[in-house]
Amino acid sequence: MSDPLMQGVLDGQRRALARAITLAESTRPDHRGAANALLTQVLPHSGNAIRLGITGVPGAGKSTFIEAFGGHLIDHGHRVAVLAVDPSSQRSGGSILGDKTRMETLSRNPAAFIRPSPTDGSLGGVARRTREAILLCEAAGYDVILVETVGVGQSETAVADLVDMFLLLLVPGGGDELQGIKKGIVELADLLLVNKSDGSLTEDARRAAAEYRGALHLLRPASPHWTPKVQLCSAIQGTGIAEVWDCVTQFRQAMSDCGALAERRARQAKGWLWSEVSENLILTLRQAPAVAALIPRVEKEVMAGSLTPSAAARQLLDAFSKN
Amino acid sequence: MSDPLMQGVLDGQRRALARAITLAESTRPDHRGAANALLTQVLPHSGNAIRLGITGVPGAGKSTFIEAFGGHLIDHGHRVAVLAVDPSSQRSGGSILGDKTRMETLSRNPAAFIRPSPTDGSLGGVARRTREAILLCEAAGYDVILVETVGVGQSETAVADLVDMFLLLLVPGGGDELQGIKKGIVELADLLLVNKSDGSLTEDARRAAAEYRGALHLLRPASPHWTPKVQLCSAIQGTGIAEVWDCVTQFRQAMSDCGALAERRARQAKGWLWSEVSENLILTLRQAPAVAALIPRVEKEVMAGSLTPSAAARQLLDAFSKN
Repeated sequence: MSDPLMQGVLDGQRRALARAITLAESTRPDHRGAANALLTQVLPHSGNAIRLGITGVPGAGKSTFIEAFGGHLIDHGHRVAVLAVDPSSQRSGGSILGDKTRMETLSRNPAAFIRPSPTDGSLGGVARRTREAILLCEAAGYDVILVETVGVGQSETAVADLVDMFLLLLVPGGGDELQGIKKGIVELADLLLVNKSDGSLTEDARRAAAEYRGALHLLRPASPHWTPKVQLCSAIQGTGIAEVWDCVTQFRQAMSDCGALAERRARQAKGWLWSEVSENLILTLRQAPAVAALIPRVEKEVMAGSLTPSAAARQLLDAFSKN
Repeated sequence: MSDPLMQGVLDGQRRALARAITLAESTRPDHRGAANALLTQVLPHSGNAIRLGITGVPGAGKSTFIEAFGGHLIDHGHRVAVLAVDPSSQRSGGSILGDKTRMETLSRNPAAFIRPSPTDGSLGGVARRTREAILLCEAAGYDVILVETVGVGQSETAVADLVDMFLLLLVPGGGDELQGIKKGIVELADLLLVNKSDGSLTEDARRAAAEYRGALHLLRPASPHWTPKVQLCSAIQGTGIAEVWDCVTQFRQAMSDCGALAERRARQAKGWLWSEVSENLILTLRQAPAVAALIPRVEKEVMAGSLTPSAAARQLLDAFSKN
């Protein structure tokens, strides 16, 4: 069943790719089986893209930036896939239509593929599906994968574990705009990009960039092989966009030469394996009737301080093993 | 067996407390059982201390600071327990002797209790034992618990989940000293303390403090009820030490009035429960012969990119359920 589908994916047919991703997103056991078979087959054809995570506060202009950046890349012969990660999209109702209207020009471009976040509440679930979507997009010949996430949740840390390089999109305003960004995100960034550096904001943007450089000076870089950069751009005017790609290529070069990129991907893959194993185990435990019956009382007592976490864990594990 | 021991702990006998902690640190199943019984009994008598995490780069003067700070507190009628968290202490050979010589004056003070890190490689294990040591120290009447950790590993995040307030000890030098601190730690801190603010370093210390205030401005505080402070002190000269305690009391006040402190502790306890459950599950899975036999190959293939993490997880979980 998955063979023609695989062929379609390898031929770079967008419809086949979309169907393959839908299959990988399904939680139905038979679908999971087919998806795993498909993924195993396409795996040898994956891994050739540069994987970029992009985040920023709402209003930072992520969609406009991705429109401009993606368009620039396609003009230079690249094929660009945009994957959204938003564990809240179920509630916020993020839909393919929503994403397509957000990036109108790009979505109409045959060299672009835009996929909204899988509407699955759990971050782990979304991360796994995005991970597999990345592999499928790479197998379909997309050589630049943009994983977009909203800069307000834990999703950034999850996305940082999915990508090679992490871009943080900021707006001028001298630091205060960062109040909206969850702590820790600045330190995930390999490139801080101050957007809206145009017109009356040009000066503010320069000042903001200087402040960020100062702040970065106080933080140890994520990798010894790359020092995070701070750059300016205007997605609307299209200025500074080519320079972003220059920075990405520098990053890729620097991280590949020393083997750090391959290392990071291997480490990520190992991490995914074990997080998926433990998510599965916890889920199985939580769903065991004997355990499910205990959880509310046990959690209540632990939170009230009348039961130690260790004793409580013991109770749940015993109930599970008896199950 | 644990009743006289419990009485000794509740009476605040240091030897009984030490024995109780040793019992809680043991991994022997019968010891675990006795420890859980003991902990359940003392639980109602715990929770009355302020729990402070203290970290800093090697050379920041943690021991000297704890000597001065602990001494100051005891002079003001407090009883101080110092717990070290160092998952590497097994290798680095951290020993009770080591810790006692590090804090000579304090260790000779009857109102102080100093306990080195449990020599157990795994961070999860060390965290659990420290958590239980905190409860036992509180039951023994210590009203200030200092949890010290080396500012170079992941241990800070674990410690931040153990304590009410997190202190980061820094030395003058205009930011570069932070290069040694793992990223993310600055953002855990409720109080940044620039130590060694004396003699020729006084000016550098002031400059460093100003830089940190600037950097903090760019980061969203951990709690909406508290904005991280930056203060100066000289542990050797004993200056700024009283002000540290003032800051701690302000923090405690601010976080208690709005219920944020109780909330944080409840959230921490719930987190401990589930991390302990999943650590146990993963360990059981890893130790299952059928799984243990698979792991090396599966991990190798995943890291080499020839097997998807999902398919690999499936293989391990199937082998486990067949076990």
